[in-house]
Amino acid sequence: MSADGKTGLQLRSLIKKSGELEISLLNVPTREPSADEVVVRVEATPINPSDLGLLVGAADMTTAKESGTKDSPVITARVPDAAMRAMAGRLDESMPVGNEGAGVVIRTGLSEAAKALMGKTVAMIGGAMYAQYRTIGAGECLVLPQGTTPAEGASCFVNPLTSLGMVETMRREGHKALVHTAAASNLGQMLNKICLKDDIGLVNIVRSPQQAEVLHKIGAKNVVDSTSKTFMDDLTRALVETGATLAFDAIGGGKLAGQILTCMEAAISRNAKVYSRYGSNVHKQVYIYGGLDTGPTELNRTFGMTWGIGGWLLFQFLQKIGPADAARLRQRVIAELKTTFASHYTKVVSLQEALQLSHIAIYRKRATGEKYLIKPNKG
Amino acid sequence: MSADGKTGLQLRSLIKKSGELEISLLNVPTREPSADEVVVRVEATPINPSDLGLLVGAADMTTAKESGTKDSPVITARVPDAAMRAMAGRLDESMPVGNEGAGVVIRTGLSEAAKALMGKTVAMIGGAMYAQYRTIGAGECLVLPQGTTPAEGASCFVNPLTSLGMVETMRREGHKALVHTAAASNLGQMLNKICLKDDIGLVNIVRSPQQAEVLHKIGAKNVVDSTSKTFMDDLTRALVETGATLAFDAIGGGKLAGQILTCMEAAISRNAKVYSRYGSNVHKQVYIYGGLDTGPTELNRTFGMTWGIGGWLLFQFLQKIGPADAARLRQRVIAELKTTFASHYTKVVSLQEALQLSHIAIYRKRATGEKYLIKPNKG
Repeated sequence: MSADGKTGLQLRSLIKKSGELEISLLNVPTREPSADEVVVRVEATPINPSDLGLLVGAADMTTAKESGTKDSPVITARVPDAAMRAMAGRLDESMPVGNEGAGVVIRTGLSEAAKALMGKTVAMIGGAMYAQYRTIGAGECLVLPQGTTPAEGASCFVNPLTSLGMVETMRREGHKALVHTAAASNLGQMLNKICLKDDIGLVNIVRSPQQAEVLHKIGAKNVVDSTSKTFMDDLTRALVETGATLAFDAIGGGKLAGQILTCMEAAISRNAKVYSRYGSNVHKQVYIYGGLDTGPTELNRTFGMTWGIGGWLLFQFLQKIGPADAARLRQRVIAELKTTFASHYTKVVSLQEALQLSHIAIYRKRATGEKYLIKPNKG
Repeated sequence: MSADGKTGLQLRSLIKKSGELEISLLNVPTREPSADEVVVRVEATPINPSDLGLLVGAADMTTAKESGTKDSPVITARVPDAAMRAMAGRLDESMPVGNEGAGVVIRTGLSEAAKALMGKTVAMIGGAMYAQYRTIGAGECLVLPQGTTPAEGASCFVNPLTSLGMVETMRREGHKALVHTAAASNLGQMLNKICLKDDIGLVNIVRSPQQAEVLHKIGAKNVVDSTSKTFMDDLTRALVETGATLAFDAIGGGKLAGQILTCMEAAISRNAKVYSRYGSNVHKQVYIYGGLDTGPTELNRTFGMTWGIGGWLLFQFLQKIGPADAARLRQRVIAELKTTFASHYTKVVSLQEALQLSHIAIYRKRATGEKYLIKPNKG
């Protein structure tokens, strides 16, 4: 790191053809801004579940080893042979990591738009945020309101826009209420705040009584625990109450997505007068947006013929709704950054600390409630 | 059966609360036609895979027994306890069976439209076709061209409209080619004829070299055998060749739907320049329209985030496209009834014969190539 920001540390993840994962910090030159770009000193960048895929890939972290020095730590681990096929696209390519972050503009290109950002605190999305400096288009910077710290603005995009995107998807696809799994997460809590504020029915599915408690405390109305013996009945009852026919599932693997569809169909058919062996004609949809369980998704198809399951990705959603609507969502995030969209971090670390196995062991678990913030310029 | 058609035999399927399936023939009065209705003497009605669900339900046919008399046979079988939940909507209700059929109008209501059909040979869809007489709306009858026998017109709807519906869905959802599973079926052969005629890429997935041969004989270009060791590579190659990103799956259970998505993603990503851990941004879709394998669908999700799986049902598809477009599809079926949409039957039986265990054992297997036609008024 140079004081003028001409060079800086950048976290890199590399999977070698030999099957070895290597995570390290490189000292790289900061790319000079073109006319419409600025250089941001990254002050805060979160570790989201969506960052872990690129960071550790399919490596078996029980084989992970620390080496290098305290200032320049290196993590290595084995990628199981069976998982190498899925890594084919990134082999032997050293990849920067970090979807989003916030910082201060320290240098700008010559355009008016770029120059106007000088000294401003901005939020960013676009990868390579686990770094001390990031060169980025002026138009891609979201200027944070005065009095907002980079830490407060670091998680401006992924969780806030994902939770708003779920509600927007619900409206656009003609559903009236939502189901969310892994619902006690940071994202899940945001979604609850949005739904309470906008008066939208939301069924929260959690995996422990403790997680249920977290949601009850913030005023969640419908919380069901998938580890309870009465789960299917509890879920069906909540679906009858809310009329939810759309679910967003962060878990992906296992039977949960299918169970949600089964309970939706049971809730819809509860008052059916006529038997149809094809089930109801109400469309039931589950979008899988995460993979907390990387195992196979298992659908027993006891939910008629009117259903869909698919992947859901924030970037594609934003592209689909177009720039005007995307800007409207971003404006809402900024307006409610310290309320609805406030993120809570359980740990703040430097880039070097982020590469300590003791920390990796914690943030890799993606345990509900745990959330790390990296401060790349933390002294 | 009365000579004037005032009463006639009707096949009924009943699942009792006790867990017993009973299939029998009832002698029922023919409902008198209202002004806009006609009475059709049903001359030919096929046993489609889509009829079997209502006919035998979830019964375990290894427990099936014949009783009654030759003229009035009765089949009974046990429904496994685990399957009774899915049967809840039809318990203790004696249900008529048979989606489609054709026959001759023998009596009409007083409206002009109804009277115009007197003596005509018509095709019908709407259930309760496994019967000697069927009262039905004049507007629901499709008049067959002169020189068409009821046997030739009996399968006018389900297979022809389903295969046309697949091609129409492909066009409407922006795909350029198709994948079809269980592709050597009657339906699959029709789909091949349509695609050859309309110059549409079609990848046929079959489950044996014999089935592959059936398709090669009718000119199918891309045939891959899922039992081959090189299946995944063969399928990927065919997907590269055709550019198919939409599949219709008659099988439902097992890994096939997920394998198709995996190969589609591999075909799309073959020339990818940039690694994305979310996979390609090309939408890949599988519609499950049958359940030859009633086991769970297993998705390993090795196909990125841009995908969908869902149910597909002819009736809902026709509703969605609206009456004008549905009529256009029906017109094409009539125009090509003896070519593209010709059905082939391996066995012709009476209603009584359809209730012989030796026949049930054959048509229940839904074996590719086997197809039964019932002639309810066969002497």
